[in-house]
Amino acid sequence: MKHYDCIIIGTGPAGQKAAIQAAKLGKTVAIIEKSKVVGGAQVNTGTNPSKALREAALHLTGNSRRGWTGRSYRVKKDITIADLVSVSDQVIRHEWEVIRDQFDRNGVDLIWGTAHFEGPNLIQVQRDGENEMLTADKFLVAVGTRPALPKTVPFNKTDVLSSDSLLALGKLPKTMIVVGGGVIGVEYACIMATLDVRVTLIEGRDQVLGFLDDEIAGAFQYLMRQDGITLRLGEKVTAINAMTPEGGDGSRSVNGSLVEAVLESGKRIRAETLLYAVGRQGVCGKLALENVGITYDDRERLQVNEHYQCLNMEDPENPRVIEHVYAAGDVIGFPALASTSFEQGRRAICHAFGVEVESWNQELFPFGIYAVPEISMVGMTEKQLTEKGIPYEAGIANYREIARGQLLGDDSGMLKLLIHQETHEILGVHAMGTGATELIHIGQTCMALGGKAEFFINNVFNFPTLAEAYKIAAYNGLNKLAHV
Amino acid sequence: MKHYDCIIIGTGPAGQKAAIQAAKLGKTVAIIEKSKVVGGAQVNTGTNPSKALREAALHLTGNSRRGWTGRSYRVKKDITIADLVSVSDQVIRHEWEVIRDQFDRNGVDLIWGTAHFEGPNLIQVQRDGENEMLTADKFLVAVGTRPALPKTVPFNKTDVLSSDSLLALGKLPKTMIVVGGGVIGVEYACIMATLDVRVTLIEGRDQVLGFLDDEIAGAFQYLMRQDGITLRLGEKVTAINAMTPEGGDGSRSVNGSLVEAVLESGKRIRAETLLYAVGRQGVCGKLALENVGITYDDRERLQVNEHYQCLNMEDPENPRVIEHVYAAGDVIGFPALASTSFEQGRRAICHAFGVEVESWNQELFPFGIYAVPEISMVGMTEKQLTEKGIPYEAGIANYREIARGQLLGDDSGMLKLLIHQETHEILGVHAMGTGATELIHIGQTCMALGGKAEFFINNVFNFPTLAEAYKIAAYNGLNKLAHV
Repeated sequence: MKHYDCIIIGTGPAGQKAAIQAAKLGKTVAIIEKSKVVGGAQVNTGTNPSKALREAALHLTGNSRRGWTGRSYRVKKDITIADLVSVSDQVIRHEWEVIRDQFDRNGVDLIWGTAHFEGPNLIQVQRDGENEMLTADKFLVAVGTRPALPKTVPFNKTDVLSSDSLLALGKLPKTMIVVGGGVIGVEYACIMATLDVRVTLIEGRDQVLGFLDDEIAGAFQYLMRQDGITLRLGEKVTAINAMTPEGGDGSRSVNGSLVEAVLESGKRIRAETLLYAVGRQGVCGKLALENVGITYDDRERLQVNEHYQCLNMEDPENPRVIEHVYAAGDVIGFPALASTSFEQGRRAICHAFGVEVESWNQELFPFGIYAVPEISMVGMTEKQLTEKGIPYEAGIANYREIARGQLLGDDSGMLKLLIHQETHEILGVHAMGTGATELIHIGQTCMALGGKAEFFINNVFNFPTLAEAYKIAAYNGLNKLAHV
Repeated sequence: MKHYDCIIIGTGPAGQKAAIQAAKLGKTVAIIEKSKVVGGAQVNTGTNPSKALREAALHLTGNSRRGWTGRSYRVKKDITIADLVSVSDQVIRHEWEVIRDQFDRNGVDLIWGTAHFEGPNLIQVQRDGENEMLTADKFLVAVGTRPALPKTVPFNKTDVLSSDSLLALGKLPKTMIVVGGGVIGVEYACIMATLDVRVTLIEGRDQVLGFLDDEIAGAFQYLMRQDGITLRLGEKVTAINAMTPEGGDGSRSVNGSLVEAVLESGKRIRAETLLYAVGRQGVCGKLALENVGITYDDRERLQVNEHYQCLNMEDPENPRVIEHVYAAGDVIGFPALASTSFEQGRRAICHAFGVEVESWNQELFPFGIYAVPEISMVGMTEKQLTEKGIPYEAGIANYREIARGQLLGDDSGMLKLLIHQETHEILGVHAMGTGATELIHIGQTCMALGGKAEFFINNVFNFPTLAEAYKIAAYNGLNKLAHV
C-alpha cells in the first residue's frame, strides 16, 4: 500500500495548484481524477470552454469591431457549432498537456479513478473494476461542482440543456430560453445573442448579476436588450416542458423540438432550446466522508475554517475541525471562481505543511464576467458604501471619450472609480467594455498598495490606451469633489 | 487689440491640455492653429491615424486571431486603402469634435491662422491675408514637429513618401522600402507587412528601436522576419532614386513606378514605394522667436528648463530663461510622445500660474510601440541595470503558458519583470504581445506605489486574463532568486 505526504482529490484549479505547491515543498503527492481528463470544470466544461466559445463567437461575427462596421458586417457567414467548438477543443487539448506536463515535471503522481475514504488516512481508488488503496498524512478535497439538475426539469441533452451539455449542441438553434441570470446564464445568453440566436433570459430577482454595482448592471441590461435579448426579470419558472414533435408549429426547430417554460405569472415562453443555469452543486456524496468525520450540506458542499480545514457541522454551534483534511475550490462555495480556487489550493497546502503565507484581503478579490460586453469589478459598490455610511464620489470615464475606445469602436464601455470623499482613497473600481477584466487590475493594484485618486492624475499612461480611462475617471471624480 | 492671460500656439496634445488647464484655473485663453484642423500630428497625421490604420489592418486581415486560424484566413479579401482610411477618417473626425467641444465648453478661444511674435508679449496672427494682433501675459509654444525632409530624398507623395503622406497613398503597393528603424518606421513596416506588402526595412544601427530591452528587441526582430519583413541592419542609405517609368521591369507598380535605395555597402534595393522615416524636426522657423529672445537648434527644436520655460542658448554655458514663454510637446524633443506631451502642457500652465503639481518620476514614463505585435516598457532594461551595477533577476511569462494567451491565439507574447535581487522591488517591466501597452500599467502602478514581486504572487487575478502573466513572471523570477 503506497503512502504519500499528501493526496489531492480532483484536478481542477484548486487541486492543480495544491499539487504543485506540495511538490515544490518536497512532499510526495498523489492527485486523483475520476473523469477521463484533467482540469475539472475550468478546463473541460466551464470557464475555459465558455471563454473560448465567446472569443470565437465575437471574432467570427465581427462583433468585437461592431462600432465601426455596423451590425450587418460578418466575418464568416453561417456559423456552425463545429466552427466554434474546434477553437474550444484546441484550447482544451492544450490545457490538458500543460497540466499533465506540470504534474510530470514536479513528480506528482496522477492517478485515474474514483476515490472514497475508507478511514481517516485511507483512500480507495476504483478504476476499471480494480481497486487500489492509498494512505496519506494530509488530504485536500477539491472535487468541484456540477450543474444542479432538478428532477422537475426534463434534461435531455438535445433541447433542454445544462451548461455542461450546451457545448455538445449539434446545431445553432434559432431561439433559446435561458433560465437563471447568474454568471453562467448571462455569459451564455450573451454569447448566443452574438450568434444571432433569439434569447429570452428568465431571472427570479429584479436584476441579473445581483452583486454588480447598480449603474453597471443597469447599463449592462440596457446593452443586453439592445443586443436583442429579452429579459424577464422578477419572474419564476414553475414548469419546463420538452414538447414532443408533432409538426405544424413554426417555432419548432429543424429537429422538430420545442421547449416551453411556464412562468408563475402565467406567461408561457417557447423556444427551440432551453438552457437551465440555476445553481451548481458539490459532488461529495460518493466520497464516504463519514469515514473521516466530515459533513456536507444539502447541496453536497463542504464547510471549512479560515485555513481551509474541513468541518464537522453535526453541532452547528460547535463545528469540529478535521485537521488533516482540507477542502478548496468550488466545493466550498462562494466565490467559486478559478482565480480564487487556485489560491485556496495553494494556501491550504501551505497551511498543511506549516508554511506561512501572507494574509490576503478578500475585499480586493476581483470579479470578472465574460459577457458581451466584458464586466469586471473590485472593491465595493455604491450601494455597499452607502449602507456602510462611507462618503464617496464616483468618477466616470466613457470609452467613447478616449482615443483607444474610438479606435476599437467601443462606444458603450465605461470605467467607474469610487473615491473616498475625504481621503481620496479608491474604494471600488467597476468596468464594463473591451478589456474590462484586464483593466481592473490597474485599479486593484492601486487599491492594494494604498494609492489615491491623485495617483491617476499624475501618472503618465501610454497613448492611446483604455488605461487612460483611469485618468479621465479620476479627473471626473475629483472635479466633483472640488465643489464639496 | 485683445488681451489674454495666456496664448497657446498649436492644438496638438500639449496645447490642448494646456488650454483646458488654463481655462479651468479661470484664465482667459486663446489657442492658435495654423492648419485647417485641430489636433496636430497626434490627431491628423501621426499617432491616431497610424493606430487606426493598424487596428483596421489587424482586424480586416484576421491577424489578431492568427494563432487559431492560420495565415491563410482573411476577414476580407482585396483590401484597399479606402477600407483602411475610412476607419481612420471616422476616428479623426470624432477627435476634431471632441477637441473643439472641449474648447467651447471651457471658453477657450480657438483662433485659426499662422502666428509669430512681434514682441515679448505681442503676437500677430495671419489668416487669409488679414492680420490680427493679440497680447498675453504668458505663452506656450506647442507647435510640434513634421517629418524631416532632406533635400537629397526625392519626395513626391506617390512613391517616395514621408510618414505624413503615407495615408494619402492611393493603392496598396506590392513592395515597400522603409528607411529608419525608429518607432514610426517600425510601426508602419509592421502594418504594411500585415497587409501583405513585402517590406524591406533599413536601419543604420544594429537593432531597431534601440531603447528597447535586448531580449524583447531580439524577439521582436525575429517576429518581424517571420512576418516577411527583410531587415537590413547596420546599413546606411547613400542615395534614393525615384526612377522614371520605362516599362518592362516586373517590379514596377501598376503606375509603373519604381524606387531604388542605394546602400553604402553597395547593395541596391528596389521597390514600388519608399517610406522615409528618419527623424522629425520642429517648426519654429516662422515664429520669429528672435523677437522674444528664444533660440532654437538646427532641427528647429527648443530647449526648456524643468518648468518648461524656454531658454536662450546663445551662451550654452549660461542659458537665459525666458520666464513668460513656455514650450511643450514634440518641439522640445525626447520623448515626443502624446502621453507625455499632454502632461507637459498641463504642467507648464500650472507653473505659469503658480499652481503646484506633484513632482513626477520620469523613470516611470511608459513607452508604447504600436507595432505588430504591440510592445511596451516602463523602468529600466537589463543593459541599463547591468551598467548601473544594480543586481537583478528576470522573471518571464510567456502568453502561451497562460489560458488567455491560448484563448487569444497569441503564442509569441511575453512579459518580463526585472526584480531587484535583494529588495525584490520591480525595476522594469517589458511586454510584447496582445494588450502590451495596457498591461504595462499594472506593473507601472506597482512600481510607483512601492510594491514588490511578492505582491503579484499574493494578488488574485481574474481568470482568464493576460494580467496573470504578472503572477507567472513573479514566480519565475523569485524561483530563480531562491537559489541565490
